[in-house]
Amino acid sequence: MNTYIYPPLTEWLELSNRPTKETQDLQQVVLNVFDEIQNKKDKALIELTEKFDNVKLSNLYVSKQEIEEAKSLITDDLKNAIQLAAKNIEKFHSAQQEEIKIIETTKGVNCWRESRGIENVGIYIPGGTAPLFSTVLMLGIPAKLANCKNITLCTPPNKEGKINPAILYTADLIGINTIYKIGGIQAIGALTFGTETIEKVDKIFGPGNQYVTAAKQVAQNFGVAIDMPAGPSEVLVIADNTSVPKYVAADLLSQAEHGVDSQVILLTDNENILNETIQELEKQLNVLPRKEFAAKALENSRGIVLKSIDDCVNFSNIYAPEHLIFAYEKAEDYTDKIINAGSVFLGNYSCESAGDYASGTNHTLPTNGYAKNYSGVSLDSFIKKITFQKLTKEGIQNIGPAIELMAEAEELFAHKNAVTLRLKS
Amino acid sequence: MNTYIYPPLTEWLELSNRPTKETQDLQQVVLNVFDEIQNKKDKALIELTEKFDNVKLSNLYVSKQEIEEAKSLITDDLKNAIQLAAKNIEKFHSAQQEEIKIIETTKGVNCWRESRGIENVGIYIPGGTAPLFSTVLMLGIPAKLANCKNITLCTPPNKEGKINPAILYTADLIGINTIYKIGGIQAIGALTFGTETIEKVDKIFGPGNQYVTAAKQVAQNFGVAIDMPAGPSEVLVIADNTSVPKYVAADLLSQAEHGVDSQVILLTDNENILNETIQELEKQLNVLPRKEFAAKALENSRGIVLKSIDDCVNFSNIYAPEHLIFAYEKAEDYTDKIINAGSVFLGNYSCESAGDYASGTNHTLPTNGYAKNYSGVSLDSFIKKITFQKLTKEGIQNIGPAIELMAEAEELFAHKNAVTLRLKS
Repeated sequence: MNTYIYPPLTEWLELSNRPTKETQDLQQVVLNVFDEIQNKKDKALIELTEKFDNVKLSNLYVSKQEIEEAKSLITDDLKNAIQLAAKNIEKFHSAQQEEIKIIETTKGVNCWRESRGIENVGIYIPGGTAPLFSTVLMLGIPAKLANCKNITLCTPPNKEGKINPAILYTADLIGINTIYKIGGIQAIGALTFGTETIEKVDKIFGPGNQYVTAAKQVAQNFGVAIDMPAGPSEVLVIADNTSVPKYVAADLLSQAEHGVDSQVILLTDNENILNETIQELEKQLNVLPRKEFAAKALENSRGIVLKSIDDCVNFSNIYAPEHLIFAYEKAEDYTDKIINAGSVFLGNYSCESAGDYASGTNHTLPTNGYAKNYSGVSLDSFIKKITFQKLTKEGIQNIGPAIELMAEAEELFAHKNAVTLRLKS
Repeated sequence: MNTYIYPPLTEWLELSNRPTKETQDLQQVVLNVFDEIQNKKDKALIELTEKFDNVKLSNLYVSKQEIEEAKSLITDDLKNAIQLAAKNIEKFHSAQQEEIKIIETTKGVNCWRESRGIENVGIYIPGGTAPLFSTVLMLGIPAKLANCKNITLCTPPNKEGKINPAILYTADLIGINTIYKIGGIQAIGALTFGTETIEKVDKIFGPGNQYVTAAKQVAQNFGVAIDMPAGPSEVLVIADNTSVPKYVAADLLSQAEHGVDSQVILLTDNENILNETIQELEKQLNVLPRKEFAAKALENSRGIVLKSIDDCVNFSNIYAPEHLIFAYEKAEDYTDKIINAGSVFLGNYSCESAGDYASGTNHTLPTNGYAKNYSGVSLDSFIKKITFQKLTKEGIQNIGPAIELMAEAEELFAHKNAVTLRLKS
């Protein structure tokens, strides 16, 4: 971790930069795979899976029998844990449902919004180093609450052609039963164009490696929406003399272990806390199974001492972290000052892992500074809000003359005429 | 207007196609302009404005004096009309503010969301054939309600270097005073990268021609968010024997006059209504100043007779119209069946012009089938919702063991450790 003591304001912008990395331009790679899928459909998916996942599947669909088998492979303790998390996530996200409020803007003019689930949504769950069944909860539960009609889950098979049982158990628990063994660019292509087996969707959700991320970006040019642009995970912790260095270190590491390109930032008004946290980092790092990832991520990371907690919050708003931890006692005094962040954790007991798994908030959040312009995933991500209006005769009489004048000033005379005809009658 | 009587279900998908048009690939054109702006900043803007808008500006900024002058050029009647519209739009959009609801998902685990305005937003208002001051209301009012800190409005100057006074009056009315004389790709580039004069923004809103649309699309690759993908405007009207053909025709025309690539669709269960509407279309078309646009648009358009109103609604859900008018008496009986639409107008007095100008709903809506996966612009478009959580000691004790199990199953041991340390203490 690189440290900076009282850097001047002029350096803050540079200190809030993400590690730049050489990103390959994958657009052409994606377009080639998309082409194959449009032409050869299922056949292309089977071939690409053989090529990239080293398994020749006869069937992309996960059978009922495979799901039953998965259930028997999960311990009761883990089942209970997943159920507790599911209950909390459902409770938090169902409170996001909007009641219909009819607003009479002018006498006789009633306007309101109604929510409708996006009909066809695709959820991508990566394979790779860790089986992210928690993401099944985070995306599947709001999709269900939104009443999305068709929820399709894609995840790559292992070399034996199997899906991690925790992923299957979790999907089944929340009522998702359309699951395909397909990963990478080919999964995103299948969801974008549809094949004989996999239905085309309207919106694609979920994390993934650089290929999946590039494919989602390109998919947008073919009429599909995506949850948000993706980047490496990150956390910013603000600590003062009421913070507990070993907790702070543990929270920094729980972000750093995600991958070598993760970034963690520690801000404090107290140099001792910085030093103690760095000592704790070294101690805790050594016993971690993923310590190589975490150690690399710490090389991209920064510990910064600033004059005050107010300065720390100001810096954080410039950085716009995915996760922001106020690791000190008077955390609530500063919440109003937070402008840019994905999810905020207050006090010594609100560790990031809580939000990653089980407190109820969503863990799909804007990274790479996108907390300036995007929200994390919520129920809203799975619905459209349609506006409705009903004017009575009195209503059009009340606002009609204004519409006529405005339409005329915009030189749109057919717009005007639609009102004039009604006012005359 | 092309007519179809009882087309079979198998043809519906094709009948819900938008007119295909040869779209030039403008990405390279956009990237070249963006390059110039990144290198030469204001100087590039001045040069590009001379090239495309035929005016050499000494200054991009609209002065207070120009705004005062604009005010004197607007009639009191138009001012009153704009004020009435503004009041309704403000009333409807302020009802979209979300109250903070703290949800205790498990004892000691409190989670909630808070809204924050996106700090820097850019609003693009096209020049061209009609001065769209109504769009200043539709984008500026929710931006103000969202407490966006910096609202920058860009709109191209005419050959005299002036901005339409109705645009300036409206911007001033709602409190937007950072206005620049810049249009086209160069406006989007300036908002994306910033120059000496124009500040970089986080999100860009507003309609525009194919160049502006392409520039917004490309801007997304540089960290900027946009309101939604854009396409030609469209309306779908459903009529039965309680509909008034002259109103229906007027509503179809008020969409068709937007441009030659607009599309209008009439669905009905009653062939007489179709025929009477077509007669009315011809009659009304002839007296329209923009009749050439409208006549061209009608060539892309369809009148379709189906077996029942239920069938009409089903067809409409496949088409996913930007504007949907239920032009009949029992309109409310069918609202639950609407799945895909941008904005819905119910009954004989709710003409589309009402929503375009003054009823209070937003007129920036998803086109080209995007009503399947996007909502129209609302207050939500200008805010981020940040999740917060505060766990007490009891809270982490209640959910901590579940987090430990889940983290371990995902092989993320630092995530687990952040909880274990807290449970131990």
